[in-house]
Amino acid sequence: MRTRIRDLGIVIGALGTGPLNRISDVRGVTVGHRTLVSGKGKLVPGRGPVRTGVTVIMPHQGNVWKDRPSAAWSTINGCGELTGALELDEFGSLETPIGLTNTMCVHNVANGLISHVLEKNAQAGITESTVVPVVSECDDSFLNDSRGMHVRPEHACEAISAACEKFELGNVGAGTGTTTFQFKGGIGSASRVLRFSGHTWTLGVLVLSNFGSRWQLTIAGRNIGSSLDSGLSAHKRDGGSIVTVMATDAPLSSRQLKRLSRRAFLGIARTGSFASNGSGDISVAFSTSNRIVYSAAAERRDVREYREISEEKMNTLFQAAVEATEESVLDSMFCSTTVEGRDGHVSAEIPVDQVLKILNKSG
Amino acid sequence: MRTRIRDLGIVIGALGTGPLNRISDVRGVTVGHRTLVSGKGKLVPGRGPVRTGVTVIMPHQGNVWKDRPSAAWSTINGCGELTGALELDEFGSLETPIGLTNTMCVHNVANGLISHVLEKNAQAGITESTVVPVVSECDDSFLNDSRGMHVRPEHACEAISAACEKFELGNVGAGTGTTTFQFKGGIGSASRVLRFSGHTWTLGVLVLSNFGSRWQLTIAGRNIGSSLDSGLSAHKRDGGSIVTVMATDAPLSSRQLKRLSRRAFLGIARTGSFASNGSGDISVAFSTSNRIVYSAAAERRDVREYREISEEKMNTLFQAAVEATEESVLDSMFCSTTVEGRDGHVSAEIPVDQVLKILNKSG
Amino acid sequence: MRTRIRDLGIVIGALGTGPLNRISDVRGVTVGHRTLVSGKGKLVPGRGPVRTGVTVIMPHQGNVWKDRPSAAWSTINGCGELTGALELDEFGSLETPIGLTNTMCVHNVANGLISHVLEKNAQAGITESTVVPVVSECDDSFLNDSRGMHVRPEHACEAISAACEKFELGNVGAGTGTTTFQFKGGIGSASRVLRFSGHTWTLGVLVLSNFGSRWQLTIAGRNIGSSLDSGLSAHKRDGGSIVTVMATDAPLSSRQLKRLSRRAFLGIARTGSFASNGSGDISVAFSTSNRIVYSAAAERRDVREYREISEEKMNTLFQAAVEATEESVLDSMFCSTTVEGRDGHVSAEIPVDQVLKILNKSG
Amino acid sequence: MRTRIRDLGIVIGALGTGPLNRISDVRGVTVGHRTLVSGKGKLVPGRGPVRTGVTVIMPHQGNVWKDRPSAAWSTINGCGELTGALELDEFGSLETPIGLTNTMCVHNVANGLISHVLEKNAQAGITESTVVPVVSECDDSFLNDSRGMHVRPEHACEAISAACEKFELGNVGAGTGTTTFQFKGGIGSASRVLRFSGHTWTLGVLVLSNFGSRWQLTIAGRNIGSSLDSGLSAHKRDGGSIVTVMATDAPLSSRQLKRLSRRAFLGIARTGSFASNGSGDISVAFSTSNRIVYSAAAERRDVREYREISEEKMNTLFQAAVEATEESVLDSMFCSTTVEGRDGHVSAEIPVDQVLKILNKSG
Repeated sequence: MRTRIRDLGIVIGALGTGPLNRISDVRGVTVGHRTLVSGKGKLVPGRGPVRTGVTVIMPHQGNVWKDRPSAAWSTINGCGELTGALELDEFGSLETPIGLTNTMCVHNVANGLISHVLEKNAQAGITESTVVPVVSECDDSFLNDSRGMHVRPEHACEAISAACEKFELGNVGAGTGTTTFQFKGGIGSASRVLRFSGHTWTLGVLVLSNFGSRWQLTIAGRNIGSSLDSGLSAHKRDGGSIVTVMATDAPLSSRQLKRLSRRAFLGIARTGSFASNGSGDISVAFSTSNRIVYSAAAERRDVREYREISEEKMNTLFQAAVEATEESVLDSMFCSTTVEGRDGHVSAEIPVDQVLKILNKSG
Repeated sequence: MRTRIRDLGIVIGALGTGPLNRISDVRGVTVGHRTLVSGKGKLVPGRGPVRTGVTVIMPHQGNVWKDRPSAAWSTINGCGELTGALELDEFGSLETPIGLTNTMCVHNVANGLISHVLEKNAQAGITESTVVPVVSECDDSFLNDSRGMHVRPEHACEAISAACEKFELGNVGAGTGTTTFQFKGGIGSASRVLRFSGHTWTLGVLVLSNFGSRWQLTIAGRNIGSSLDSGLSAHKRDGGSIVTVMATDAPLSSRQLKRLSRRAFLGIARTGSFASNGSGDISVAFSTSNRIVYSAAAERRDVREYREISEEKMNTLFQAAVEATEESVLDSMFCSTTVEGRDGHVSAEIPVDQVLKILNKSG
Repeated sequence: MRTRIRDLGIVIGALGTGPLNRISDVRGVTVGHRTLVSGKGKLVPGRGPVRTGVTVIMPHQGNVWKDRPSAAWSTINGCGELTGALELDEFGSLETPIGLTNTMCVHNVANGLISHVLEKNAQAGITESTVVPVVSECDDSFLNDSRGMHVRPEHACEAISAACEKFELGNVGAGTGTTTFQFKGGIGSASRVLRFSGHTWTLGVLVLSNFGSRWQLTIAGRNIGSSLDSGLSAHKRDGGSIVTVMATDAPLSSRQLKRLSRRAFLGIARTGSFASNGSGDISVAFSTSNRIVYSAAAERRDVREYREISEEKMNTLFQAAVEATEESVLDSMFCSTTVEGRDGHVSAEIPVDQVLKILNKSG
Repeated sequence: MRTRIRDLGIVIGALGTGPLNRISDVRGVTVGHRTLVSGKGKLVPGRGPVRTGVTVIMPHQGNVWKDRPSAAWSTINGCGELTGALELDEFGSLETPIGLTNTMCVHNVANGLISHVLEKNAQAGITESTVVPVVSECDDSFLNDSRGMHVRPEHACEAISAACEKFELGNVGAGTGTTTFQFKGGIGSASRVLRFSGHTWTLGVLVLSNFGSRWQLTIAGRNIGSSLDSGLSAHKRDGGSIVTVMATDAPLSSRQLKRLSRRAFLGIARTGSFASNGSGDISVAFSTSNRIVYSAAAERRDVREYREISEEKMNTLFQAAVEATEESVLDSMFCSTTVEGRDGHVSAEIPVDQVLKILNKSG
């Protein structure tokens, strides 16, 4: 993992970050990757080369099936998959961790998440309801043998086992084979700490980035993509998707989380995207502070209590969401290294020296 | 106002009603009408005949601008107008009473509701925000000179002044000129009382009905429309809309109210509708128990408390919503009397004797 | 497969049916089942008993990946899964057949559909985009060992191979383990033939039914569920879902198909449902007449032609959709036979003689 | 009207503009303003000062009621009003011109548009359906006596009469009293010309801007708001809204227009917005090339023909939408001059010299 963009002196936005500047600055949130890299050279569909993986976001350290965080999602370009989308809208809560992977492995990862829930909950699917996991995706077939569907359910479980607070960024997990602004992209993350009259809350973002053409790339407001030379002559075409996951410990209702989730697209816009036709933009947000307990006892209760922040107070969260998403997208590139995939396709790392020179930063 | 359907021995559904069997069985809810009837004979556009009006639902007896009930809306056929729809989705609350009128008078009624709020709130539009009212409509131009836009803003204010618990049903207020299953329709209402372990809650419905072809009419499951003879040879064509307003004192969040509002369409389906092309189906639901206080002091608070009922407990509310909507639609016809409007157009009252005979009820 | 409801003299609606009274009356549409039944007695999670399956709807006999029917979806209760939902909204077309199965096997069936497309399209996931299948589900865990996730990807492919016009109805395929109004439900289907000035069009419906409490059951407008005796003392609780698939050869745009798909809920309402909390209602509709060709040549074209029916002409389609959905739900019960599943749970067939007696039909 | 931003040497985006660099570069589109300015000094609610107006976008020069352009809308922050929203979704077309005004005058402008349609269509509301106009708004009460509701229906008709291609920009019409990034905002517009293999198409944007805090203001990627000195000590708080109207002569379906309309938010994001709590973001898009003819003859036809552009070709339109929206927002400020409104509230024009100096432009 290379030096993060902020450590290079490029500061995105005005709000301060949490200690790790990751989504895991929201207490309880952890992230695990399982990276799959094997083979090289010519594509043999079903065999390789393999440049892919899976990333799982754990919304808290308990049993998500029994203790369900408020959640919501939105899209500004629904070219992509988000399993569990209908139930997120209907019930406003998560019942599994969130999985990210390549497009045609969504269902293997979903199966892995189902297995994870079944293993911890002996009555799920018997006296309790059946499991509907939340998984989204990017298409990494520029580098990866995506027809091979190499991410298997057990890889999702391994990602869960590997989940930690200080997780890797860049070309790891679901970001192993993705490409952003025709440079190597992948997993990025950032956080913002928000101080109110009587509260300190944290908002964290994680992105899986895989979109954009080079000429669009805008860093800290400077549209510099066309000035960068990766030493390569050919590039992945535009298209691919960007998935954003937001976490906060502020007590938001699902209605407020839907509002929050939409700000991801404004952060992405600042990096130069115009949400091209084939590039889905999907955003999921959850709150660790409002949870729905799923149990026989809870079902017997007539009423449950929850909290919302005052609507005017959403503004700081909106700002944080935009800033942290913009920084996450950029960091997904700055933290990645060059990857050569199938058929000699290369996704080159962003040339940091060139960027710093243009921006007049010493690094 | 004629005898209500339930008093004729036709009982819709299994749950018990409140004392008035109206939306006003939800404590604090009142309804006011202003009915406009004048002229007869040939249509002189802009002059008459006038067969229209306005109905206003007051969600509580306080200042709705300062004390905003949770609310949501839905549609299964968006052929119609619902002002304020975007803010209902975004903020999940009502800031004005709810107005109903004919299609081209929506904006006059909206202006009336704005005036009502401005009058009671000297800082609205100055230090406070501007007013976005909620108004919906049906097209009564089969009977009414709708080009005359005869419902004026002051009529909405008069309806507010007239609001009471024991309001009239049938061809009054916004229902003055509407037609349902090619019989005279108008305002219908019903309520259901729900007993839980530790709570008694009420759900009330009011409809403004103006849809359907006679052959579709289904009463208590019996598709009897084609057997009824109104003594008329010509009828209004299908199309027109049905607006449903639901109130409850159960503590529902806006997410849950959206779920609830959708059940209106299932109740309407039972009366024989298939939601024809030109007939909008719009539903608004609010809870008097979850309110957002709008004040400088409230804005300063970081967090507000909320309640939701346990999701499984929604089932009885869903049943109540379907039953009360079905009954309201039918009662809008049973309570109405024949109206002759422009150009000799007649909307005949449903022949109650014929209905009772077919259903083997003595009345 | 038992006698269909219409052959028993119970006629739903006014419009005429196609020759098979199935979704396959829409030319080109076929349906395949793969039914999985094994074991009996006590549940051994992961081992059985197995009472489940998969059903696949083929929208035409060509390569759906290359020749994409206009399509849309809607829900009135999003308690359930519909993979591919975001792309249906964004692009308004299907790129795979439609799969139906039990909740936790959605992802295996999705993988089967992906394999099917990959096999027929050597460039999918290489020079062409990756595959996003459309799969929906019901929860059959009252009878079935759903934790065993017994429907495998290859079963979906076998269902595709088995696809035909005169497919079985009742407890087959995805309907093997489902329960409707606490009787045995499963796969139902119906069609309606529509004659316009210059056109004859067909609308077909297929449902996978798994919802409702007995007391709600309404047949041809008669609420008779409580009068029926299945000889059993215990029943599956309410909840479970109803998925509707509609096909037509009328040239509808995706906007119009979304309108059409919503009428499914009105048909379901007529059978007595109030869309209970845990019972998702999901509807997908497609047109075989408006197709988007996916090819390099097509992409090079600037403009494509399509057709819509005149909006007023939607009314007959709406009526057909409501009628055919109502009949499909009822037929899913009338065509099913008693199934005993795990732990002695029995889903009893509807007692046809009792129904006929109540309805005064001779059978 | 001051010098436009592009004429100052600040070029937004890469695509070329049409001859007027306005929405009216789309053939047939015209725009009319009616500006209301009177009184000064202390607010006397209902009396003044008046700093407001109305702007009407004519989608073509024919009878919009009879010849309805395909249209769609979207929002990323529904804090605001858009009348006609439900019918836009249901039918995918416009039936009136589009009106813009201040929040509490929406209904007067809607009434003006209704009158306009009634006057030109003697059967509207008699044998034809009733009129549902499309109007959106911004809250100009920082400068304006909004409680006075000074924009009357006749002002909307006067705006229609004044409609032309070379309309004014800045503090005119609906933009008379608005404020953007705490500088004077108002009406902005821009266009882009798109050349395809066999086609030249134009996309035009008009905005009514009224949002943002100064520190957010970003011009051509440079976040320079905090460096600008307007000479004033007090400013309007954030909140207020931004409405975007897009026109194109490319043949887009309503589904594609919805996709297009969403790109407005990405353009707005580039100017520094994070879509703050009280600032609604609403976007409407229409195509002059796909029109639905509303007539008895058209209704009798079973089928109508349509065109869509190939989905991949949307990319250039997306880019154009983002660029033209960004430029329109900035131009709404650059074209405006300082306005003093009620109670000494001043919305200062952006200090162009300071901007040019920071950006190293000579002007």
